[in-house]
Amino acid sequence: MGYAVIFMHRQFSLQPYSRHYTHSTNCFLDFMELKSDGSIGVNSKYAPKMKSVLEKYQEFKKNETLLLLTFVTVTDYLFLLRSVTKIMSVLKENAMYYLAAAVSDFFIPAQKMSQHKIQSEGGGLTLMMDQVPKFLKPMVTNWVPDGFIVSFKLETDPALLVDKSRLALMRYGHQIVIANLLTTRKREVVLITRGSEFPIKLTEDEIAEDKEIESKIIPELVKRHHEWIRDAGHADL
Amino acid sequence: MGYAVIFMHRQFSLQPYSRHYTHSTNCFLDFMELKSDGSIGVNSKYAPKMKSVLEKYQEFKKNETLLLLTFVTVTDYLFLLRSVTKIMSVLKENAMYYLAAAVSDFFIPAQKMSQHKIQSEGGGLTLMMDQVPKFLKPMVTNWVPDGFIVSFKLETDPALLVDKSRLALMRYGHQIVIANLLTTRKREVVLITRGSEFPIKLTEDEIAEDKEIESKIIPELVKRHHEWIRDAGHADL
Repeated sequence: MGYAVIFMHRQFSLQPYSRHYTHSTNCFLDFMELKSDGSIGVNSKYAPKMKSVLEKYQEFKKNETLLLLTFVTVTDYLFLLRSVTKIMSVLKENAMYYLAAAVSDFFIPAQKMSQHKIQSEGGGLTLMMDQVPKFLKPMVTNWVPDGFIVSFKLETDPALLVDKSRLALMRYGHQIVIANLLTTRKREVVLITRGSEFPIKLTEDEIAEDKEIESKIIPELVKRHHEWIRDAGHADL
Repeated sequence: MGYAVIFMHRQFSLQPYSRHYTHSTNCFLDFMELKSDGSIGVNSKYAPKMKSVLEKYQEFKKNETLLLLTFVTVTDYLFLLRSVTKIMSVLKENAMYYLAAAVSDFFIPAQKMSQHKIQSEGGGLTLMMDQVPKFLKPMVTNWVPDGFIVSFKLETDPALLVDKSRLALMRYGHQIVIANLLTTRKREVVLITRGSEFPIKLTEDEIAEDKEIESKIIPELVKRHHEWIRDAGHADL
């Protein structure tokens, strides 16, 4: 089984493939060179990597297996997520939902926003923010009750991480929480189910090779998704 | 007289030249193509524009007349601005300071920040923000008292715009405010001095050709900067 990917992302944030170039500290134009025949090429130092990225991107495009969907505000995100998941619900247990977007916990609803720019003459500003609606409960219960749902839990305090992840699994009833700490999240996560904890780490060698932790998370999730589909009744993992 | 440019920008925001590609709604990789000889080229549809951008970028690099400096927080910005302007003050009246960064009016100082991620169990969140220090006064008075300083005033309420701009000129004692409204800022600004208002607008034709309003603002500022240098004593404009 292969996956087609619907990638929801905030406008101008990192996107698959192009992310290697848009948020680099090097300017992307430093990779390009003007050739003697007047055409533009890629500097030979950077060409092999760009070629590999471009080939993968073009394959996804050709096969039409990558759909990029954009949002701007957290409200846009929630409505888009509901629409997309409701459409995807026909895929039943064959769809995996990988909820990696770092959605804010608090927001200011449109109707409470100032019509005009807030004047700063008066000194400081007190902002009253509402809690962002907890969408995992309706998503698991109503939007895609048959889907394989993976959420993320990011904390800064290691003492809270596992307990809060388990609490989320109990409260929302989905399949997996990927628990991570702000400072170590790019090299270490814990894949948490109701009954197990499975650490995923990059080795020192992998870090030195710029390997990304997602390259170890995704195969593990695919394996578990397949096992979960195979097990009739989708018993708790 | 030509200008060398020190460009202070928030990390990952738009930068000169590369901005045409990093924040496009098209993916930059859509402009690239794999050639039959295995190399990577630029699609002929996009090549002329990229070539023109690349040539200008490389000329700036070759001449070492563009220095990119990065900041992340508003505190970084203010300290960087003070350092850079103090160094540039040896240029006396020959330096123009174009303060286009949209600096926030309010912020949370580091010492008031939560050590850990704020838990959302308790409902909403009340944020008490401090006013960002008004740096134009010390900049004009102490850091670069001889410089030609252009600040921006952005408002959403047209009724406030000109008065607030004049108030800024009176309060801080610098040379020019570029006044603009959120909704029309990309096609219309007013260049305000203590004694005059000079509107700069894109025509419908210029808008259709994707001309940018900066291409009319900058020559006007260069002209005024030269006149101001020429006039001994730097009389009010």
